[in-house]
This record gives sequence, structure tokens and C-alpha cells, in this order.
Amino acid sequence: MRKIKLVIEYDGYKYHGWQIQPNGITIQSVLEEKLRLITKKKTSVLVAGRTDAKVHAEAQAAHFVTRSRMTPREFLRALNSVLPKDISIKKVEEVDSDFHARKSAKGRIYRYTILNRDYPSALQRRYSWFIPQPLDLPAIRRAKKCLIGRHEFSAFRASGCEAESPVKEIYRIDIKRKGDFLEFTFEGNGFVKYMIRNIVGTLVQVGKGQLAAGQVAEILESRNRKLAGPTAPAYGLKRVKVIY
Amino acid sequence: MRKIKLVIEYDGYKYHGWQIQPNGITIQSVLEEKLRLITKKKTSVLVAGRTDAKVHAEAQAAHFVTRSRMTPREFLRALNSVLPKDISIKKVEEVDSDFHARKSAKGRIYRYTILNRDYPSALQRRYSWFIPQPLDLPAIRRAKKCLIGRHEFSAFRASGCEAESPVKEIYRIDIKRKGDFLEFTFEGNGFVKYMIRNIVGTLVQVGKGQLAAGQVAEILESRNRKLAGPTAPAYGLKRVKVIY
Repeated sequence: MRKIKLVIEYDGYKYHGWQIQPNGITIQSVLEEKLRLITKKKTSVLVAGRTDAKVHAEAQAAHFVTRSRMTPREFLRALNSVLPKDISIKKVEEVDSDFHARKSAKGRIYRYTILNRDYPSALQRRYSWFIPQPLDLPAIRRAKKCLIGRHEFSAFRASGCEAESPVKEIYRIDIKRKGDFLEFTFEGNGFVKYMIRNIVGTLVQVGKGQLAAGQVAEILESRNRKLAGPTAPAYGLKRVKVIY
Repeated sequence: MRKIKLVIEYDGYKYHGWQIQPNGITIQSVLEEKLRLITKKKTSVLVAGRTDAKVHAEAQAAHFVTRSRMTPREFLRALNSVLPKDISIKKVEEVDSDFHARKSAKGRIYRYTILNRDYPSALQRRYSWFIPQPLDLPAIRRAKKCLIGRHEFSAFRASGCEAESPVKEIYRIDIKRKGDFLEFTFEGNGFVKYMIRNIVGTLVQVGKGQLAAGQVAEILESRNRKLAGPTAPAYGLKRVKVIY
């Protein structure tokens, strides 16, 4: 048996997230269906980390085990020729048997994009959260500092989260203005369900002056989801990289 | 009566182009419907230049005449609140009565984007032409030179073109590599139907070695559409700017 690692790009807008579900089409279900078509065997794909409905990936990572003798290059071409155009395979490589897409990952990078000007963008509508009100960027930058490091993130965790522990470590949160866009880059060892979207929703409240920058630390310490801001829309979020 | 200029961004993927048509939804039909809703009067919108089905615009220009007393800012907000999310208004200004979106334009800028690597992109699939074969960029750059300037572009003109004359002037064609993308920027006083897409299709043939760079000048001089390359897909094309 061989172990194959995939790097996958997807436009999540149409999908019910990564994970196979009884109702609704998912990235995993499409990928496993196409692998079965190519290898003629039922093949399970194990991902670095699930993404929610409508969340995108510039580079998601996953692995599968197969008896197929196809080369990585043949897998790349075969998959891209049968996958729908909103899922593409960027890289295929054979990995050691001890590689595990989720457990071997040392870090995960996500990017959240906000369009912050007084008119929307037709071309970026599916990839950014449009906020017409001015946002106080220095206040957002002060507020995010308390989140860096190892913390219990229960205040930013969705109720249905299946992660074993709410304790995660955020290595960095970079906030850059690119023209009318604000890009929030999160790097950490892992993120619980909705954690990034709940953090962004809370930081936006700070940016609008609805919360003081110092209150974010209090929310974090409270471990109370009800104190944090609303969940930012899924389509503004992209999984950018998985680090091994 | 007041004359109002609009700058419009749109994702053309779903639309049958700019121009109102008996069958199929167009940018113009949607915009005029929403202006009628806002001003309570039938309002015609005159564009700087039509775009084909699936072609996008970062900044299309148009004007309309109205008795409405709404300010430009009120028009901007009202239109963006009722338009579908794949059409957005970037700018509204009141202009002199002698302004004409098409006749006053001094130049038009288009960009054609090619993704040139051996695997496709899920996120850019609607905004770029995926070409997996390597392209000879120096040959493409040599070939495009003969097109700069004032020429009769009949060899690159679609059969159904309604333009009065096939004589147009191209001010520049810039070709830039940005990562795996090739961006072709065209600036000129005007372009006949399919002209840019036919030029790109021909330059791609040069890039693949199917045509010699020197043959493009011969094709231009032949004025024979049958000698030029195939029409590049519409979704790779964006109207970037109209210069007044």
C-alpha cells in the first residue's frame, strides 16, 4: 500500500464544507468519488482539518492510501481532468507511511479578507466580507495582541465543535491593508470550530467602536461564547497553507 | 435634465454581455430595471463600449439622463442596495451635458489573463484561461509588436461586428508574468468585436510554436479572419478602465 499526499485548492462557495454529510455535496465526497473512479476502489481521504460550508482553500492538505500504481503526476492529471472546476489538485506526492495529514501538521495558516470601503465589489463578493463602515485599524491591532499564544478559546468556539480541547496556540495574527481590502492572516497549531470567524467578528466590533480593544482580553478570559462578537461570514475565509 | 456618469464593476460570468437582448439577462437590462425602480422612470443607460457574454469589468463606464434630484452619493447607495451582488457601482458623478460615455472616451484598457502551469486553479477558474502547455513568452512579445499602432484589424474582427470601421489604434500591449499568471494589458482608442480575444488566441498559437512570431504581421496585413487563431475564452477578459 502507498500513501499519497494531496494539496487541494477549492472554491467552497457551493459546498457544504469539507466533511462528508448525509445532505449536501462536500469537497470530501466529490474527491472520494473521483478517486474511486480513477483507482476503481473505494478510497478514503483524510484531511489536515475540515473547513466549514462556503470556506475556501488556496492549499488544503490531505492524504489517502492506495494500491494503485499511478505516479503522482498521473494522479494530478487524472484528478484534475475529472474534478469539477471549483476543486483543483495543486500537488501530489508519495509520502512515508508514518505521514498523517492531520497529526503531522505543525501549523495551519488561514486568511480572512474584509472589503472596507463604501461600495461593494462584484468580482470579490464571494471571497471577502463587505463592511462599508470605517474600521479603526489601530484599535483592532491593539485588541488582537491578547489572542496570540496558548489559550483556552472557549469564548470563540462554536457550540457544535467536536475538537477534543478548546486549548490552542496562535503563533501570529497579521493584519494588512491592501488597497480597500483588509487581510487578517492567522497562523496557529490548530483552530476550533468557527474560532477564526468568531475572532474576526469580535475584532470588527472593536473596529466599529462597539467594543473597546481591552475588552477582547476579558472576553477571552471569560470563556463565555455569549460575550464574543457575531460569527463573520464563511466566504471571507480561506485556508492558505498547512505546514509540515 | 441632469446627466449622470457611472463606473460599474461586474462579474460577467452569468450574463449575456452588456447589451440588452431578446433572450438572456444582460448587465444593461438589470441596470435599467434597477434605475427605473429607483427613479420611477424608464431610464436608458449608454455605455462606453459593449462587452461580450461572460466578459468581466473592473471599471466599465456609462451615462444616463434623469430628472431625479438624487445626489450622486444617493444613487451609489440606492443602486448598490438593489443590484445583484455580481454588479456593483463604484462611482457616480454628475457630468456636463456634452459628456458622452462612448464618444468622449479617449482610450480603453482591457486585461486578458492566462493561467500557465500544468494544473488548473479552482479560485481563478472564472477569471483566467487555463493553458497547461509551456508558452514561449519572448516569441509572444516579438509577435505583438506589429499590432501596436493604427491598423485595419479585419483579420481579428468577428463576423457579426457592428462597428463602423475595422481601423483602430492600439497604444500598447503589455505582457507581464505574475507568478503562474500571464497578464496581457491592451490600451487603445477602441476595439472591434472579439478583437482582443482573437489577438490573444493568435498570440497563444505563437507561444505554443504553432505560428512563427513573424506570421502575425502577415495575418494582420491579410485582413483575413480565417488566418488568425481561435477566439480566446471570454471569461479571461476584463474591461479595466475607460479613459476620458
